[in-house]
Amino acid sequence: MSELPLTLSLVLRRASRMGGSKWVVTALREGAERRTWAQVAERALRLCGALKRLGVRPGERVATFGWNHHQHLELLLGVPQLGACVHPINVRLHPDDVVHVSREAEDAVVFVDASLTPLLAEVRARLPHVRHWVVMGEEGEVAPSFMGAPRYEELIAGEAPLEGLSEVDERTPASLCYTSGTTGRPQGVEYSHRALVLHAMGALMVDSMAVSERDVVLPLAPFFHASGWGLPYSTAFAGATLVLPGPRLDAGSVAHLIERERVTLAAAVPTVWNAFEPVLREGKHELSSLRRILCGGAPLPMRTIQRFAEHGISFLHAWGMTELAPSGTMARAREEGSPEERLAPLALQGAAVPGIELRVVDSEGRELPWDGASVGELEARGLWGASRYFKGSEGERFRAGWLRTGDVATLDAQGALRIVDRTKDLVKSGGEWISSVELENHLMAHPGVKEVAVIAVPHEHWGERPVAVVVRQPESRVSFEELVEHLRPRVARWWLPDAAHFVAELPKTATGKVDKKALRRVYARSHAT
Amino acid sequence: MSELPLTLSLVLRRASRMGGSKWVVTALREGAERRTWAQVAERALRLCGALKRLGVRPGERVATFGWNHHQHLELLLGVPQLGACVHPINVRLHPDDVVHVSREAEDAVVFVDASLTPLLAEVRARLPHVRHWVVMGEEGEVAPSFMGAPRYEELIAGEAPLEGLSEVDERTPASLCYTSGTTGRPQGVEYSHRALVLHAMGALMVDSMAVSERDVVLPLAPFFHASGWGLPYSTAFAGATLVLPGPRLDAGSVAHLIERERVTLAAAVPTVWNAFEPVLREGKHELSSLRRILCGGAPLPMRTIQRFAEHGISFLHAWGMTELAPSGTMARAREEGSPEERLAPLALQGAAVPGIELRVVDSEGRELPWDGASVGELEARGLWGASRYFKGSEGERFRAGWLRTGDVATLDAQGALRIVDRTKDLVKSGGEWISSVELENHLMAHPGVKEVAVIAVPHEHWGERPVAVVVRQPESRVSFEELVEHLRPRVARWWLPDAAHFVAELPKTATGKVDKKALRRVYARSHAT
Repeated sequence: MSELPLTLSLVLRRASRMGGSKWVVTALREGAERRTWAQVAERALRLCGALKRLGVRPGERVATFGWNHHQHLELLLGVPQLGACVHPINVRLHPDDVVHVSREAEDAVVFVDASLTPLLAEVRARLPHVRHWVVMGEEGEVAPSFMGAPRYEELIAGEAPLEGLSEVDERTPASLCYTSGTTGRPQGVEYSHRALVLHAMGALMVDSMAVSERDVVLPLAPFFHASGWGLPYSTAFAGATLVLPGPRLDAGSVAHLIERERVTLAAAVPTVWNAFEPVLREGKHELSSLRRILCGGAPLPMRTIQRFAEHGISFLHAWGMTELAPSGTMARAREEGSPEERLAPLALQGAAVPGIELRVVDSEGRELPWDGASVGELEARGLWGASRYFKGSEGERFRAGWLRTGDVATLDAQGALRIVDRTKDLVKSGGEWISSVELENHLMAHPGVKEVAVIAVPHEHWGERPVAVVVRQPESRVSFEELVEHLRPRVARWWLPDAAHFVAELPKTATGKVDKKALRRVYARSHAT
Repeated sequence: MSELPLTLSLVLRRASRMGGSKWVVTALREGAERRTWAQVAERALRLCGALKRLGVRPGERVATFGWNHHQHLELLLGVPQLGACVHPINVRLHPDDVVHVSREAEDAVVFVDASLTPLLAEVRARLPHVRHWVVMGEEGEVAPSFMGAPRYEELIAGEAPLEGLSEVDERTPASLCYTSGTTGRPQGVEYSHRALVLHAMGALMVDSMAVSERDVVLPLAPFFHASGWGLPYSTAFAGATLVLPGPRLDAGSVAHLIERERVTLAAAVPTVWNAFEPVLREGKHELSSLRRILCGGAPLPMRTIQRFAEHGISFLHAWGMTELAPSGTMARAREEGSPEERLAPLALQGAAVPGIELRVVDSEGRELPWDGASVGELEARGLWGASRYFKGSEGERFRAGWLRTGDVATLDAQGALRIVDRTKDLVKSGGEWISSVELENHLMAHPGVKEVAVIAVPHEHWGERPVAVVVRQPESRVSFEELVEHLRPRVARWWLPDAAHFVAELPKTATGKVDKKALRRVYARSHAT
């Protein structure tokens, strides 16, 4: 057989063979830790030896609870080589949810950042199924209950790289990531070796992320979100340099890292880039190496796109889901036309990347035309799409071979996706739908608005009515009445919000998305007439 | 299941859904035939209906004998949807080899270009297993024995697109291509759906061919050579515009087509590009749309690379094999440095593309170091590598999971491949190897040399000695003695050829490679002392 299976051993071997002069860099409080990809691959195989010694068996889960750094990367690459499954737990989950996901996954071992041990200390007693705890990193104070646990470096210090690993079947689960649970309990999604390799190949495609061996890639998306958007695997496969930010994700730290490491491709949710305004204004950081920003997960304001374009930095506007590992679509600027024409495609989410198929259906599941106008629920399937939730049935989210995304959208004749709303975030007023996303986009265009969320609140007469929750720009004193005047020429009269609440900040989920579930809890009765 | 299999139905659906405004263009003697990808997909499904009506069953072969054009493309896309296998026969094969491959494949139907029917007329009686003949294209005189055969357009005219095709298993053979047989009988290589889809994904990768939806792709490599280097499938999958040249492959016709259709990526063997010198010199054609040329299959002279670079056109220098569908490696110019430094990587064949693995072994099969110096036989394996020959055992070409390529090569620390020679083309003189490729490269650098092949001829004392067969530049009268003086400072004394034969042209195989087997037959006794 000269035909190889679609397993992560291919990715590890490529890192090992082609990565002798390519780097993995982890930002430290001062300076950085630097190793070649070949060294990282060697350490991942030493980790395999240590895990075997700890008694980890094929099919078991090994969990992580940490930021993006070297050791975490080695777990992502190493654990699956054993036929075991790496389970990066979202460090921002509520403690009850941490207990829920770790129990469901029956994690045999948990690797936890020293700085995050205080978070796990309070739930450790509720996780009796965990046989071993290992502490990662050097920074941060270790909680007393983790004092006895071995350090990662101690664990692998004496190990030789594990040899003669038997090839696992490509359908074997390699990784387990949970959805962020904006609308309910987190749900587990297992990624097979095959799905992760196909997704990595997809990320190398020129019309997708176009990860190249000449890139210096900075994934700010945490590894616990769909493997850091798959970038550890695609970067290893491409042979690109990988820069890992550790826990410091503020604009100043990120700008400093981009400048120092000459990052060419950075990936994060809009929140990170919206917060770059002071950095761009002050101009203290030399960001000229940065060619493109991969961004998705929440609406991306055109204002942010334009501000970066003024500095010669292009956005790749993506839509994805944990269930799609996560790549679904990609929008990029046009190469020709006026500045506005060039950026126009970035207002949409772009076309499905090769390997993913989309359709929009009505409430009876009938496919709607690709006319840019017909609004329905978005459904997806593809080469790296999940087929079910971990330990769950296909359930109502999977229907006739399609994943029901929960997004409300249109597709145009070229296949470009426009997310109109989340099914759960639409406001149903008098039997008609109001798009909270569209209201938010209009409100964001007001110079006095820094952030905004529009939510549905119950209304005796109309069923639901829209209410805006607004964070003002620092100097702004914009009023509800002024916002309504701003909206009046832009939307139907019955779309105008009934009220605005001005707040200092919006609650966010672990993905950086606005936590509308929390807002609805707070403001549900703001309006009970 | 929202996880799709790796089958060509994915590619066909993408052409159909995303290809409403992207074109397939076939060059005609005058003008061009133009259809959208969506129309091509629809016609491919009508073809499926017609083939079903003709009684083609899953697992059977449907052969083609034609140049690159619309109908041929529809066969490449359509036939595999039925679970049948498309078999493009090399139109330049010797009639005996045509009979051999068609008999071995048991072709149920043969589609033949009208202009090529005279070639098949002489062997038709020896192909009794063929149940149906269909004539493609409008150009050229149809041989009398094909007068009764239906035309392609008649065949599909009354058909509706076949619906409700059942999904085939991804391991099902989709296409069968034969090697060109430079060193023996052509051998069949079956490509599964899975291999073709993975190969197409590979072609979209930014560090490989980087086929983008913004490209206009011109495959001059014929479909009977590894599916036109896989470009019909990768172009359909990317949603790029595809330009098909028909039978006219001379430099003038190709330059005209590039200019008229604004081609951005063209693919052909070096012979085609070496012959472009007059076109480049005369400057009558506007070639500014052409950004990159994919080239492989034979040594690519640096002179040709430099000439195109002067016009702002970059080469992608690839190495591949029919057994690899065919992508193996890719070299591209550097983005920085002096002109010489930028082009230097193109002297090598480049690194294995992600998904392919290479190694160099000694005569005992032991792996040699990646030092750019250790010479051994190149072995390959990968995601789209063949495992055996059609109707053959794994045989001696497949060993311990690796394909023995028959190429003699080095790999350097970055994994860049340098093909030193074919195992069969090395000259063994006094027990030491002489590289015919290296001698050819030096001779090609002489301004009086247009083309050259160095072959081994038997020698009583030394076993073998090198002899050069030379095509002079039009104005040149370079002599054997002058060539020896040119070589003297460049190679060891015992490498100097014993003789040179000056000829008007070199015999070529169907791939455009110099047919050294034929030369050896002619010149074997040139030297029998």
